[in-house]
Amino acid sequence: MAIQGSDKVNRVIWKAGEAVEGIDWVATETAVALVYNGISHVVMMATPADLEDFALGFSLSEGILQSAKQLLDCEITETDKGIELALTIAAEPFAKLKEKRRNLVGRTGCGLCGAESLEQAISEPAMVTAELSISHDAIQKASSALASEQKLQQQTGAVHGAAYCNEQGDLLLVREDVGRHNALDKLLGALAKKEQNKEQGFVLVTSRASYEMVAKTTIANVALLAAVSAPTSLAIELAEKSGLTLVGFTRTGRHVIYANGQRIH
Amino acid sequence: MAIQGSDKVNRVIWKAGEAVEGIDWVATETAVALVYNGISHVVMMATPADLEDFALGFSLSEGILQSAKQLLDCEITETDKGIELALTIAAEPFAKLKEKRRNLVGRTGCGLCGAESLEQAISEPAMVTAELSISHDAIQKASSALASEQKLQQQTGAVHGAAYCNEQGDLLLVREDVGRHNALDKLLGALAKKEQNKEQGFVLVTSRASYEMVAKTTIANVALLAAVSAPTSLAIELAEKSGLTLVGFTRTGRHVIYANGQRIH
Repeated sequence: MAIQGSDKVNRVIWKAGEAVEGIDWVATETAVALVYNGISHVVMMATPADLEDFALGFSLSEGILQSAKQLLDCEITETDKGIELALTIAAEPFAKLKEKRRNLVGRTGCGLCGAESLEQAISEPAMVTAELSISHDAIQKASSALASEQKLQQQTGAVHGAAYCNEQGDLLLVREDVGRHNALDKLLGALAKKEQNKEQGFVLVTSRASYEMVAKTTIANVALLAAVSAPTSLAIELAEKSGLTLVGFTRTGRHVIYANGQRIH
Repeated sequence: MAIQGSDKVNRVIWKAGEAVEGIDWVATETAVALVYNGISHVVMMATPADLEDFALGFSLSEGILQSAKQLLDCEITETDKGIELALTIAAEPFAKLKEKRRNLVGRTGCGLCGAESLEQAISEPAMVTAELSISHDAIQKASSALASEQKLQQQTGAVHGAAYCNEQGDLLLVREDVGRHNALDKLLGALAKKEQNKEQGFVLVTSRASYEMVAKTTIANVALLAAVSAPTSLAIELAEKSGLTLVGFTRTGRHVIYANGQRIH
């Protein structure tokens, strides 16, 4: 059965010397354009599921919006080239965005979303003020539960997942995407919408923890990021500076703490 | 022992109820700024190894350069914020780059390197004209050999690899990076330098095959891309259109062909 974000394809499996034709499911990847108050801003490759969460999470992670309330509307239009997200944002953040774009004549960034010099790329870290006290067992509990909640991953084997978990290690929200940054942005967008009654908790991602994954988590003021795979050197540095607790290699029966372990007992 | 691209860190391993302090190696991630003839262009997060290959491969993949000969010099400078690659490129591609940047007032792209509208993002595919005739066994042979050539991955568990392999499945070149796009750009850069005596062959990557991985491979006119993990829907579409042979889930004893299987026997 097709679920949102997957496509059926023909393929040939070669196995033990024999080639067999058949069909299979792959993760959908689509060009998604973000348009703010009528101005095209950026195109990302993403999985077309939970795109409103993505729009909000990306806008917050990039500092375009400061709160979920500033996103007034998100209209989704499919075209033959991809999907357009027409966002209506409040006057104040839009004025700031226009000003920022005016200062960026000829900028053609990528990777670090528009940064063209080292000074722009590595900015002062956001400081994590959220409180959290969590047991090793809660991290393990969340880790064990994640796979069964990754519906798109089960069908396609091609997407990353990001989950928000409470102090007991229960999964409260899960989002998926072909891009690990997008999966996290979707999760943080969904989380921002329920800011009023947000439980203390942590984020668990199926990918590595790179600089940008840590940066997004700290901007969202989440106290702990647990990654299934390895962290990078710069991710550890940023986590130390910003007060984020960083956990890597989160697997069954073990995990590794790289920064600010005082929140884990 | 430290190898290029890895850093030593302190960490706490939690395993079966016990927390143990120690040291470990992680992959280095650094902000790398690309500066063309004195003009800052973009900052990427990358592993600081084989940066000249990266500079050339990125410039070719992005269409800034058309051939390796157009890159006249690459000077590498470390600063406290990251690494600057000061590239000297020929007059003709530099004039085109300046013209392109003039047309991009206020662009702040990311993901698709500067594209801000869907029309810019999805361009006409490059057509693969390279010939290749390869056996299933050669793909398997390359796949089995790759892990032992991923030196940085062995030490850190955090980086992707990209290899160029000949028709017999021998690995001719291997490059690694925290970013899968960067690993491929490094490989394609190294390959472009030896254009004169390049053997017919294919590219093997340890990651998934997304749209951009296929796009880079076709621009380099390599006939086959084999990925260890899954392809996305758009990657398959692009491979079909451009004539690239696309193989996914390349594992011991099996692999899956998603497009243009006629090159494999």
